[in-house]
Formats: sequence, structure tokens, C-alpha cells
Amino acid sequence: MSVPECFNPESQKLDKNFRLTRFTELKSKGYKVPQDVLQKLLEPLQENHFQEDEQFRGAVIPRLGTGMDTCVIPLRQGGLSLVQTTDYIYPVLDDPYMMGRIACASVLSDLYAMGVMDCDNMLMFLGISNKMTNRERDKVMPLIIQGFKDVAEEAGTSVTGSQIVFNPWIVLGGVATTVCRPNEFIMPHNVVPGDVLVLTKPLGTQVAVAVHQWLDIPEKWNKIKVVVTQKDVELAYQEAMMNMARLNRAAAGLMYIFNAHTATSITGFGILGHAQNLAKQQRNEVLFLIYNLPVLAKMATVGKAYGNIFNLMQGTCPETSGGLLICLPREQAALFCAEIKSPKYGEGHQAWVVGIVEKGNRTARITDKPRIIEVAPQVAAQNMNPTPGTTF
Amino acid sequence: MSVPECFNPESQKLDKNFRLTRFTELKSKGYKVPQDVLQKLLEPLQENHFQEDEQFRGAVIPRLGTGMDTCVIPLRQGGLSLVQTTDYIYPVLDDPYMMGRIACASVLSDLYAMGVMDCDNMLMFLGISNKMTNRERDKVMPLIIQGFKDVAEEAGTSVTGSQIVFNPWIVLGGVATTVCRPNEFIMPHNVVPGDVLVLTKPLGTQVAVAVHQWLDIPEKWNKIKVVVTQKDVELAYQEAMMNMARLNRAAAGLMYIFNAHTATSITGFGILGHAQNLAKQQRNEVLFLIYNLPVLAKMATVGKAYGNIFNLMQGTCPETSGGLLICLPREQAALFCAEIKSPKYGEGHQAWVVGIVEKGNRTARITDKPRIIEVAPQVAAQNMNPTPGTTF
Repeated sequence: MSVPECFNPESQKLDKNFRLTRFTELKSKGYKVPQDVLQKLLEPLQENHFQEDEQFRGAVIPRLGTGMDTCVIPLRQGGLSLVQTTDYIYPVLDDPYMMGRIACASVLSDLYAMGVMDCDNMLMFLGISNKMTNRERDKVMPLIIQGFKDVAEEAGTSVTGSQIVFNPWIVLGGVATTVCRPNEFIMPHNVVPGDVLVLTKPLGTQVAVAVHQWLDIPEKWNKIKVVVTQKDVELAYQEAMMNMARLNRAAAGLMYIFNAHTATSITGFGILGHAQNLAKQQRNEVLFLIYNLPVLAKMATVGKAYGNIFNLMQGTCPETSGGLLICLPREQAALFCAEIKSPKYGEGHQAWVVGIVEKGNRTARITDKPRIIEVAPQVAAQNMNPTPGTTF
Repeated sequence: MSVPECFNPESQKLDKNFRLTRFTELKSKGYKVPQDVLQKLLEPLQENHFQEDEQFRGAVIPRLGTGMDTCVIPLRQGGLSLVQTTDYIYPVLDDPYMMGRIACASVLSDLYAMGVMDCDNMLMFLGISNKMTNRERDKVMPLIIQGFKDVAEEAGTSVTGSQIVFNPWIVLGGVATTVCRPNEFIMPHNVVPGDVLVLTKPLGTQVAVAVHQWLDIPEKWNKIKVVVTQKDVELAYQEAMMNMARLNRAAAGLMYIFNAHTATSITGFGILGHAQNLAKQQRNEVLFLIYNLPVLAKMATVGKAYGNIFNLMQGTCPETSGGLLICLPREQAALFCAEIKSPKYGEGHQAWVVGIVEKGNRTARITDKPRIIEVAPQVAAQNMNPTPGTTF
């Protein structure tokens, strides 16, 4: 995928001030319900989590309940498991086609975190804002749907089934479902002390999209323009968009080759939140210690200059359609990072060692002074080719 | 299930004016996107609908695309099919526990319309209104979740997987998924002229909940109190609630015994809308002709008195978690209706012959003067036992 031209509402015969992100009030604020509230709400559904594995011809067919983002259900058809995940998000940027891609990639990420390569079916949910005009709806929603469909096809699956309703905010989401044999997925509780943590996309996606919106808001832009140029912001935005819109499928494939013990996808709770959630699921008494934070270039500086409102350094800055955080045997992590860069698997995308697993009480933390790895634009810089008539 | 006491916010230590239905602006208006808009939007997803059945050991493993509410996908594991459906709704009444039940029953209905008896897994979606206080959230959402869970258990399945986000309106929805052998579901395109149409729940659920809200609005109530008493309204409301909250599972089971050709569930597009949608899917050139409309007692009169705004007579009045409209061989319809009333299958619930299938151009219509069947309260009247301290 090459970097698309910046979305131009006028080319769609929409008002030049049309902005997809106006159809939610959340912007870069977390749309997810806080984890402690969630856990309390979901308690009644979490009975007997570890006790319901089933036996089939001597093999254990595992069950995974509501603790992780993906569930695993032993099927009546012996030896098979149903693996499912669901996600929904609100617009984080203004390009409808790219938002459709991002929504689909985000839904699939939780399957990839289980090492599932093949999705049997996707369902798509869309909330059409009841504040949109019919004209806006008819121009914008088909672009969103096309983006969603294109990514599903890149993932080798299709969207058969949908639910589309009116809602105050635009909603984008879906379900990914697959039926697997036991060797086609990796359960998320087999981490051991000594494992190395690898991350497959840079952090800071929501910082980049927020700051990009601030280009139009002088009182915000003036506070940060001393540390960052407009060009920096535009590059980070493009890079964030491309990262959010790409699949974690290659990483899922490499999890088998390098004997990954488990993984999780990084979204609304930030790298630390998801690491903590994963640590809680472990059979062994482990601590995930994160000492490196790969961040989109300049976005850590911007975050600091703006009073640290994004909590990037604390690891709780929400990401949209982020990378996989993968737990690999110590001797495999460097090989994984080398291989994912090769065109054969990773389409040239980087991954970074971000931490290690120690003995501990099933939690995660970030070291006092984590090292920021400035991730230079990869995709965007190569492809950037301003087109006459676009606003970029 | 006996009729619950009327939900009393004060018993939950909430303000006495707390109303779940205030967390949507739609009330009884249709929340569904009009069918023509939907069809246009979904065109890109509807490629090759009938061409992708697969072969397995000489048998056809069918595929069903996005035209109906349920999809059927041939799995890589030969001979098995993935059957999935998704639905989401907004609060139509003020009792959180009953709304949770209704949402779950509504999701499952589309599986039952395919004759699927066993659901392998459910996912639950909830949108918590960002206009709720934390106190309201902590009192109300657990009741919704409990209702959802209880109905899933009544259906012999469980809720393993959920997504809970903030949203301006409260959202309730989910996904029902099952993996089937070919004899465990009934494809929705085998209707033949001469078939008889049977409906398994009365119409008018949304009229009843709307009119029940009007008891508190003098200018609305004054217009209809000449034709209906407060008692009539309360009975119809209770009956609507009980009907929406019950499963169509018994009907799904009877579809096999009486060789049903197909079915659809009646929800947001009304009986005519869903009949038209089903007619479009048929292999044979058929017309669904509906001549009887079983309606909750007095609700047809109320609709007429209020200027026909509900379009009950036109068949387009939205229902929530409505009955199945089942196409049965002519000689089986009366037997079906007799059997579903027996405690063995139907738990005493009625079904009605509502029309026939003729030759035609794959559409549906209602006769000029359909007969209104006044459906007297069944469940509510038996169980009604006003409790001191409730508002009922």
C-alpha cells in the first residue's frame, strides 16, 4: 500500500470543512471503559475460566474466557476450537477510506495476537451518525466500507455479515471468527521468566493524530511549534496512519517460526495496560519489565512539551490498531526482529526489543527512565509525493 | 419466567425519574437504516452470493452472503459451516434487566430463523452512555449484563467475549455463532407456492412501549384515553416486554418436525419489510401474501386513534425481538400452531397463520383489508400480581 493522498473533502463534493473526527466527541481521549470498571462489570461472565478445558482423544482442547480480547471455545465437533474477537472504535482521523482500513486491521489484530493466521469470516458494524446529512452519508460511508473490505481481502478473508445502525457518533467495528485445530493458535498464558518482549509497531499513533489536528488550532499549535515543525507533524501523521492501517499478520506468522510464548495487541489501554492484562493471565509468576519505548519521531518531544497529557512515558497513552507485544524465548528475539524486516515476511517493517520478563507477581511496569527510540518515518517518507490539489 | 415487578429506580437507590430510554433519542422510531440505503451501502460486499457454495464428499456446503441477517460460511474443516448473526439495539423500555434479556433474545433470533438450535458462543456489546453518572452506570449496567447472561444460559450457551465502550446512547448488542453440520440449519431460499406463513409472536411491541411512556405525557395520553384504559396499556406493555424477552428457540426446534421451508425474524423493518427481504432470497418466483395481523390487544385501536403513525396496518411498524415468520408446507401449518401451544415445546405460547405464498415476483404484500387478530394478554394477565411499592 502506498501512502494515499491526504483526504480532500472537496474532491468528494463535500464542504471543505467536513471532518470525520467531528462525529465523535472523544478524539484522542480513551473511548475504552477503564479496566477496573470493566473487570467489575464482567465479573458475572468470568466464572470457571481455567477449569473448562475439554479433552478430545487425549488432547486438551483449551478454553479462554473473557479476560483477554479473544475467546477460545471448544466446539461440539471434537478437536476444533472457535476463536473469536470483537472490537469497535470511533474515527481518529479524517480520511474515511483509511478509517475503514484501520477499523478492520484493529479487529483482526486480536486474532493475530493468538498466532491465528487465517480468519474464516468477518462481520462489520457501522454506526452512521444521525448528525450527518444524507449527502455526507452517501459519500463517506462507502469509502469506509471499501477500506474495511480491502483490508479483509488483504488478510485473506471476507466480510460476510454486517449491522448498520444510526448513532450520534460514527462507529466502526467488527468481529473476526475462525475455527482452528489445536496447532493453529497460541494460548496467552505460557510466558516464562527470561522471555524477551518485542513490539511490532511504534507507539504514539494517537499523539500524532491529535497534534495533526492542532495544526488548525493556533492556541494549541503555538505551544508546540517551538519543538516541532509542520513537516514533522505531517510525517508523523502519515506514518501513524499507515501503521494503524496495516495488518499484524506477518508478525502472527513469525510467532510460530520463532516459538513465541504469547502476544497481545496494543490498543486503548496503551502498552503498559495491555502488558499488565497479559501478565495477569500467566500461569507462571512473572513480571513484564519494559525499558524501551519506540515512539513515532518527535512525538515523545511533543508529548513532553504539552505537559505530558498523553502519558506516553507512563505507557498508558491509548493506541489505535497498534502493534503486537510478543513474548519470545530469549534467544529468538533478535532473530525475530531481523526476520520481520525482510521482504519475505515483514514487508520491510521494523520491530523492537522493548523489555524482558522476570519473576514477579503477574504484573507489568515501565522502568524509571525508559529509553525513547525515535522511530523515523519508514513508509511515509519513501512514498511522500505531494499531489497538486491535495492539502498535504 | 414470571412477570417481573415494574422496575423501580428508587429500589436501586437511583433518582425516581431515572429512565433508561432517556439514553437514546430514538424511542420507538426505527433505529435501523432504511433498507434501500442499506442495500446500496452493502453492494460492494454482496459479490457472488449464490455462486460460492462448496462441495465436500459430493454434498453441497452452502454459502449465504449479506442479503439476510445471518451468514453461512463453508469452513476449511470439510463438511462444517460457520453460521453467525449480529444485532444491536437501543433501550426501548426502562427496565435494565429486561432490556438485557431482550437484547440477547434479539441476537439469537436470527439463528433460530435458520433452524439453528444450538449456539456455540455469544459475544456481548455494550455502549455505556457517557451521559450516565458513575452511580447510574454501576447500578444499571450490571442488571443489563445479568439479563443478557440469563437468556444466553436459557438458550444453552454462554457469553464468552465482550466489548464495552462509551457512547452517547446506551447500546445493547451481540453476536451469536455456531458451527454446524449440514442437517443442523435450514437455508432461507426454499419456499414454494402454496406454503403457509405462520408468525410466533404478536405484533405491536413498539406501539405498546411507546404508549406506555405516554401515560406520563398528558397531551399524548389525552388523545388516546378515549379508546383505551390505563389497565389496557399496562397489560399490553407487560405482554410486549415478556414477548420481546423470550427466545424463539422452541419455534426453531419445531421447524424441523414440521418440515419448514424457511423463516425470518421480525425486527426493525416490520413484518412486511422482513417478508419482502425473505421473498427476495427465494429460488422460486413467489409472492408472500399476508392477510392476518396478530396484534397485542388494543394496540391496533390505539395506532388508528393516533393517526396511524406506527404503520401497523401497513406492516412496517418496527418490532423489537419479534417472532419468527415461518414458511411451512400447507398441510403442516395448523399442526405447527397446535404443537407450539403445548407445554412440551412452546411453553404455552400461541402462533398464528398470517398468510400464504403464491406465485409472484419475489416480493411480499399485505392484503387491502388485513384481519386484525386481537391477541389477549397471555403471560402478563396470568401472573399479574401488583406489589406494594411498585409503580404498577
